[in-house]
Amino acid sequence: MLRLVLAAVMIAFASAAHAADAAQMEANKKAVVEFYDLAINQKNFEAASKFLGPRYTQHNPRAADGPEGLKAFLAFLREKFPDYHSDIKRVFADGDYVILHVHNIPTPGSRGNAIIDIFKLENGKVVEHWDVRQEVPEQAANNNTMF
Amino acid sequence: MLRLVLAAVMIAFASAAHAADAAQMEANKKAVVEFYDLAINQKNFEAASKFLGPRYTQHNPRAADGPEGLKAFLAFLREKFPDYHSDIKRVFADGDYVILHVHNIPTPGSRGNAIIDIFKLENGKVVEHWDVRQEVPEQAANNNTMF
Repeated sequence: MLRLVLAAVMIAFASAAHAADAAQMEANKKAVVEFYDLAINQKNFEAASKFLGPRYTQHNPRAADGPEGLKAFLAFLREKFPDYHSDIKRVFADGDYVILHVHNIPTPGSRGNAIIDIFKLENGKVVEHWDVRQEVPEQAANNNTMF
Repeated sequence: MLRLVLAAVMIAFASAAHAADAAQMEANKKAVVEFYDLAINQKNFEAASKFLGPRYTQHNPRAADGPEGLKAFLAFLREKFPDYHSDIKRVFADGDYVILHVHNIPTPGSRGNAIIDIFKLENGKVVEHWDVRQEVPEQAANNNTMF
């Protein structure tokens, strides 16, 4: 019986570790979705920056590095594309990473862009960002849409 | 003691379910990496198609739907871009989905494209594909590269 109890304790620890990972990934998804909405849709750097860690390493070639780069990018959007927004279609998480598949509409009525963003988090805070962006074409070789 | 044993059994089931999910996600990653290399780098439809499920729903606007669309796309690459290849930089999995971040080089010496692919799997087989593609620009607003 002692062996069974020991086995139960070991399994409980393993299960708790899995559950902690799963809970952290769910928390990361929630943080990134909130961060994304505050930044891209609301263009509110002050509010969004609460989700940033001690660095924000930027891989989007059109944005400057760091939190200051994000601040400047959001100010640019607010000035030039006040209606710029993105609808989140899919959210994934794996380890420290959260991935978003979004439909970005820079100006009302435009077909817009398909974008996939990758965010890296440390301690639940966003510290790094990659993305890839492609215009939704007028015509396509299939009827499935880019989403 | 009976309660403890029952709790141990329940935790063991939960832990086994987590482990099964994790094992399936690892298997999905491995399948997609192999499928991707056979398709995109080796341009070998016959070999790649062993990883396909009963459908292949295509969201890339330049490719026709279904396995036949993939076959035609690989034949096109083989003919027009025989050196076309992609280096996988990152692999993620979440549930039934596997995500790849790749550096695509259509012709030797070109800066190429950043691509993020999303694959959906059912029973370990690839059944759906989305991607977004962006040329790596000559100049960027930061020094972090697109990868």
